[in-house]
Amino acid sequence: MQFQIQAELTYDFAERCEVLLLMEAARGPDQTVHRERLELTPAADVARLDDPLTGERRAVFTAEGRVQLRYEADVEVQVRDATLKRVPAVPIRDLPGEALRYLRGSRYCPSDRFERFVEREFGDLSGGDKVAEIMTWIAEHLDYRTGVSDAASTALDTFVDRAGVCRDFTHLAIALCRAADIPARAVSAYAWKLEPPDLHAVVEVYLGGRWRLADPTGRAPVQGLVRVATGLDATDIAFMTIFGRAELVSQSFAIREV
Amino acid sequence: MQFQIQAELTYDFAERCEVLLLMEAARGPDQTVHRERLELTPAADVARLDDPLTGERRAVFTAEGRVQLRYEADVEVQVRDATLKRVPAVPIRDLPGEALRYLRGSRYCPSDRFERFVEREFGDLSGGDKVAEIMTWIAEHLDYRTGVSDAASTALDTFVDRAGVCRDFTHLAIALCRAADIPARAVSAYAWKLEPPDLHAVVEVYLGGRWRLADPTGRAPVQGLVRVATGLDATDIAFMTIFGRAELVSQSFAIREV
Amino acid sequence: MQFQIQAELTYDFAERCEVLLLMEAARGPDQTVHRERLELTPAADVARLDDPLTGERRAVFTAEGRVQLRYEADVEVQVRDATLKRVPAVPIRDLPGEALRYLRGSRYCPSDRFERFVEREFGDLSGGDKVAEIMTWIAEHLDYRTGVSDAASTALDTFVDRAGVCRDFTHLAIALCRAADIPARAVSAYAWKLEPPDLHAVVEVYLGGRWRLADPTGRAPVQGLVRVATGLDATDIAFMTIFGRAELVSQSFAIREV
Amino acid sequence: MQFQIQAELTYDFAERCEVLLLMEAARGPDQTVHRERLELTPAADVARLDDPLTGERRAVFTAEGRVQLRYEADVEVQVRDATLKRVPAVPIRDLPGEALRYLRGSRYCPSDRFERFVEREFGDLSGGDKVAEIMTWIAEHLDYRTGVSDAASTALDTFVDRAGVCRDFTHLAIALCRAADIPARAVSAYAWKLEPPDLHAVVEVYLGGRWRLADPTGRAPVQGLVRVATGLDATDIAFMTIFGRAELVSQSFAIREV
Repeated sequence: MQFQIQAELTYDFAERCEVLLLMEAARGPDQTVHRERLELTPAADVARLDDPLTGERRAVFTAEGRVQLRYEADVEVQVRDATLKRVPAVPIRDLPGEALRYLRGSRYCPSDRFERFVEREFGDLSGGDKVAEIMTWIAEHLDYRTGVSDAASTALDTFVDRAGVCRDFTHLAIALCRAADIPARAVSAYAWKLEPPDLHAVVEVYLGGRWRLADPTGRAPVQGLVRVATGLDATDIAFMTIFGRAELVSQSFAIREV
Repeated sequence: MQFQIQAELTYDFAERCEVLLLMEAARGPDQTVHRERLELTPAADVARLDDPLTGERRAVFTAEGRVQLRYEADVEVQVRDATLKRVPAVPIRDLPGEALRYLRGSRYCPSDRFERFVEREFGDLSGGDKVAEIMTWIAEHLDYRTGVSDAASTALDTFVDRAGVCRDFTHLAIALCRAADIPARAVSAYAWKLEPPDLHAVVEVYLGGRWRLADPTGRAPVQGLVRVATGLDATDIAFMTIFGRAELVSQSFAIREV
Repeated sequence: MQFQIQAELTYDFAERCEVLLLMEAARGPDQTVHRERLELTPAADVARLDDPLTGERRAVFTAEGRVQLRYEADVEVQVRDATLKRVPAVPIRDLPGEALRYLRGSRYCPSDRFERFVEREFGDLSGGDKVAEIMTWIAEHLDYRTGVSDAASTALDTFVDRAGVCRDFTHLAIALCRAADIPARAVSAYAWKLEPPDLHAVVEVYLGGRWRLADPTGRAPVQGLVRVATGLDATDIAFMTIFGRAELVSQSFAIREV
Repeated sequence: MQFQIQAELTYDFAERCEVLLLMEAARGPDQTVHRERLELTPAADVARLDDPLTGERRAVFTAEGRVQLRYEADVEVQVRDATLKRVPAVPIRDLPGEALRYLRGSRYCPSDRFERFVEREFGDLSGGDKVAEIMTWIAEHLDYRTGVSDAASTALDTFVDRAGVCRDFTHLAIALCRAADIPARAVSAYAWKLEPPDLHAVVEVYLGGRWRLADPTGRAPVQGLVRVATGLDATDIAFMTIFGRAELVSQSFAIREV
């Protein structure tokens, strides 16, 4: 499938500071960027910190005053196998080295705290069946709702609060999968059909020899996800890290099939 | 300097499970392993998950019942520049891509929570002077003491408790440096002159174009550290991750200059 | 029913300090103390801080070195109505003033955090039916197990850990009831038939015009509870508060029907 | 001194629910209410849950839709001895029974977590000198600032964040005093000269045989505080507890000397 993406964000920067941007479509085997344009107004000198290993595209620039960001891209996404059921877990010794870190707790996914719950609730399942059941549990026990969580909310908070947004659903899904010794990571993506349009956060688990995307909120089809960044949790995939202070003035996102 | 390392650990594994071992000396520009031997009793099939990028050496094996681990190595360590004072910070845009993740919060180092404290306490300093002052603050405000912290303790806990062991000192140092936008990571190491002998945890900060080791506990000289693993915090550098349950029966560590 | 209680505790006090003791049977309409004896060895000057309103018996003494505490009592306990089902909740305006504080969060029972969960899980029930369902949920979702929790564990920890001891079960039950606007408090008690014998922690809820005891662990019959202290949570009902440091050397409890 | 108080609050109640009001001036030896009027529009049936022991005045009513609360009072406040320095602490055994609960941790003041810090930082002081030094430490290490804390913030959060409002300053002061075995409690009050006018939260410590008011924010003179409620922390002294949902439409407070 091929998608056209448009994103436009305006910020007011209180003081001159550096900004790390992680909002360009990643390059990788499952998606090809045919055309793209990143535009800053006023224009700024952009340093590239792209990661050749992951295909992540990172831009750094210095901002001050009002800054408008505009990103447009045409991206072709390969068909993805999102099957979970009956897919076997990979033994630790057969995991690729890069998957090991996704077994461990992180800032917003303290997976060590959920080991007992996961054993108690899902202990009789394994591999993809276990992940599928975790996704079902989340869908049944959490409400999608804004205003409950904030930037400091962890998977523990969401587990207690029983509500949150895509970021929170993803954090809890990651924490539960890792607690079951299944590598799980966070992915930010432009998401076709997501309403209202926004950058989305979903989970990716390592099963049956490869990473598989899943959306614990069930709000966007996996086939329409245009991957941007991949990491341990929201700390790694934030689309913008401001090394100073700024205020969002306006933002708009659009993605359509072409 | 050249060091001879000996480590011996015995565990009782309640059930058959996989074990990830991260206790072999790393290979890298700052240290050379001349001779080493890892021995499991009873013998087990060891899979290697070594990381060619970081030089980390990871072994995976299946354990059951009583297992003895024996590791011996002769390692030559290069002279290290541990200077902090007057070393400038590196602008975000000039950081190597791999350093970016060490700017962010992690499981035990929620650096986002310390931004205000760091600005208030160390805001008039920058770069290595700021890191040096953070180390001094830690030395003056924390007591080195066992029994206060446990495996769940975070830098927040240590900041309140005002006491802990090397792992806790390291977590707080990392959290404070990251809150100051200085990349900081955790390093596990065999530590010459550390009393009692044990695996040590220290911090490494990115300043003046390279990583610099520092021991916030002040208990072991940086020149005598034999690096084992490097990561976000204790989750990444644990010398042993047991995917099941086990009990430590005995352990001994020794490191001497040769 | 009439019970004979024996408790014997030995502590080593590192330094001279004051100790607040809350281990004598309370006086009240639901139990009568026929005979009792509190003995300290070596003998110490005991100040009484008994509470005439609640019937709680508090003793303060100065301890140093090894101290043995011995308490014996014969207590007659009235038949208690422990019915929960179909008992109506009391409107806020009709609550006795002393019950109001048991609607609020406390150190180990942050009930405000559970409002959404309680509404989601038990929202269609009210009064005693809701409390009974909360007790059932706890019995089905928690394991009684030592070693999971410690003195710092809150109801939030127990909600995530899904295991704990009587204190933890009680904290979670209290937090959930208060989140449902039902006054709930902690009670320490000598508990007939509890195995192994120990001081027990149970919950008391205000329903149908009076306080009703319930044991969320289901390990001791309500009819055999000899009440000692009542309060917000473990902070209020600790049988001993040491204003200094001490180590427990040995303890034994016994309660039998006579 | 004699003060005239005016408070006016308007709320929108989403659904019919009960409301507990704790905003009337308390009756007590240190203040006399000469004239007062509480007015609800539309008029509602008010149940009184006043506490004869503490002098606290609690009103309960049923609200629905838009409700306006208006409170006016003339209150005479006795001269208060706010001396802290050189005032001795009271030995545990000589404390009045009602002071004991103010030695313990509460929802927002987990004093047990601060024992080591308090011993380390203020261990060489005692009694009022220690409390005075705690107040000085708070003034030097916290910024008075809105937007940092919220209704869930505890003394631990404030200790790390180093900023907050009167409620947060009070929680940290209470936690530190209790960690030093000095009874400390929260007091809500109309505060003469406070800018902008609002209900204020201050601390009260038990020293030298009686309770002594102190304002850790230093924003209002103790002589101009008209006491409303007293309790463990913000949970007890909230001026309004809504057993349902409501939104604040507007509020205004005024207090002037007459």
